[in-house]
Amino acid sequence: MKKLINTVDDVLTESLQGFAEAHADLVRIAQAPTYVVRADAPVQGKVALISGGGSGHEPLHAGFVGHGMLDAACPGQVFTSPTPDQMVAAAEAVDGGAGLLLIVKNYAGDVMNFEMAGEMLSGDVATVLTNDDVAVEDSTYTTGRRGVAGTVLVEKIVGAAAEAGADLAACKALGDRVNAATGSMGVALTSCTVPAAGSPTFAIGEDEMEMGVGIHGEPGRRRVRLESANAIAKELVGEICARLAPGAGERMLLLVNGFGGTPLMELYLMYHAAVQRCRERGLQVVRSLVGNYTTSLDMAGCSLTLTRLDDEMIARWDAPVHTPALRWGR
Amino acid sequence: MKKLINTVDDVLTESLQGFAEAHADLVRIAQAPTYVVRADAPVQGKVALISGGGSGHEPLHAGFVGHGMLDAACPGQVFTSPTPDQMVAAAEAVDGGAGLLLIVKNYAGDVMNFEMAGEMLSGDVATVLTNDDVAVEDSTYTTGRRGVAGTVLVEKIVGAAAEAGADLAACKALGDRVNAATGSMGVALTSCTVPAAGSPTFAIGEDEMEMGVGIHGEPGRRRVRLESANAIAKELVGEICARLAPGAGERMLLLVNGFGGTPLMELYLMYHAAVQRCRERGLQVVRSLVGNYTTSLDMAGCSLTLTRLDDEMIARWDAPVHTPALRWGR
Repeated sequence: MKKLINTVDDVLTESLQGFAEAHADLVRIAQAPTYVVRADAPVQGKVALISGGGSGHEPLHAGFVGHGMLDAACPGQVFTSPTPDQMVAAAEAVDGGAGLLLIVKNYAGDVMNFEMAGEMLSGDVATVLTNDDVAVEDSTYTTGRRGVAGTVLVEKIVGAAAEAGADLAACKALGDRVNAATGSMGVALTSCTVPAAGSPTFAIGEDEMEMGVGIHGEPGRRRVRLESANAIAKELVGEICARLAPGAGERMLLLVNGFGGTPLMELYLMYHAAVQRCRERGLQVVRSLVGNYTTSLDMAGCSLTLTRLDDEMIARWDAPVHTPALRWGR
Repeated sequence: MKKLINTVDDVLTESLQGFAEAHADLVRIAQAPTYVVRADAPVQGKVALISGGGSGHEPLHAGFVGHGMLDAACPGQVFTSPTPDQMVAAAEAVDGGAGLLLIVKNYAGDVMNFEMAGEMLSGDVATVLTNDDVAVEDSTYTTGRRGVAGTVLVEKIVGAAAEAGADLAACKALGDRVNAATGSMGVALTSCTVPAAGSPTFAIGEDEMEMGVGIHGEPGRRRVRLESANAIAKELVGEICARLAPGAGERMLLLVNGFGGTPLMELYLMYHAAVQRCRERGLQVVRSLVGNYTTSLDMAGCSLTLTRLDDEMIARWDAPVHTPALRWGR
């Protein structure tokens, strides 16, 4: 295993310390229990958005804490759910008196722990469960579809609504609507290596790819020979559209998300390939995001995410955001 | 070779098309000769900043085209200098009548071609040559020190000055001052693979790292056993400070730059290690940047960059920037 670390046990703590030091103007961090909150938390009168999940997907979720997006993020150990005590402490630190919205990716551990935290919290609590991965129904770590990179879009769009004063019911309804309008699917060219494991999560041949891979390197649909970027984009866009069934001329957001080990040059090439496939289907890509936003440590590969946009989603997407990993508009 | 591409010959063209499509609000692209300019170019009465170099270092340079940074970028083939005709066409497209500043990384091919372009251009032309890499004197592709990730800081700081109305002489002087105040050094854990070559640029053992590596995978100082993040940070910070000789309590900018194949989690861990080494030396890290900004395709590893900041540099760093890869302040 080749990684820039000191000891395996200290990876998460030291990485979070660096994150907090580098972004002291935007976030604050607490340890034991560990969570990250926006520097101006709690924001009185605002619905507080709390997310979290296993580490190793950076910048998800801590990188999206700040004005216009999340109020708090709870990082678990690598690919491991955070614990209810982290979630409760984070929620109490950001509670502005207008309710708490938990944004949870659909993995068994996360769902169970966020449910327990929700029961321990006083005040109004609602949950948005993301399950945008169209690749497989049921998987290694979950029943039902996995929550993957589409979660970033839910956090951005609902974060803007909360910042603008939407109440808890409206934020919950918007989050569910964005999730339902969003589909993702990915492909891996290499495995990732979990520091505590010390060896690759899965073996893959020099000429193979894992089509429909999960963000922990868990299996997708099938192991096949590496194809061209155009062929990959055609399959991913096709499968996502089969689920979303967008209408002709519909306005879409396209996210090309790198898994951590793939250069930006290839991600932009995949973006070009995906935009062409969308055009062939009569879809208009009107908003875009290209980069490493929901990663799987050092895995090479990428996922595509498409969202069927409506006027409110577009306005919320364009609204100012000021977080370590996503910043525009002010 | 495992890459998300169609054919080796089309990698650059298709990647740039995707880049232009994803950022149509910020940049425009021209083909044959190929260059990228800010969407509102030319900006009348403003010094125009033009950079460029081999591709494979994305987001450098095209990702830094926009308000408050570069007016134009000329991408060459992977790890290959752009040609003078690209530079001349780009310069003519962004010339606002207040002079042209060429920002050139110190590699023999880039220096020669930008010099030829400078001679072909009419009007006032000045050049800032970046050579921030402290690892080696003379290298595979150049005489003298290499220009690496510190170039991003020169482009940001001088870009803000130009946007604020500084004249050509002031921009040139500021660029030279930032370059002289900046040092960088990197370490590679794996090689990169140039698409046209199809195999890794260099061989490296499972327990080795290349200390002082260049951004094309060219040799650094020595091949040694992989060390801890703290030990790596100590050597890199030590070597950079040996060149810059910052005074006690001096205000520094710290950039932890990923080479493309290293996850953000490790980059933040390296940031924490580097900040501690700076503190031990009595330095204040007052500005930071962590991420993939000057990459080497899919190479794993990172570089550290330190700049001795003065009041003007801090103000220019904080000024608004609105480019695909760096965005804040408006």
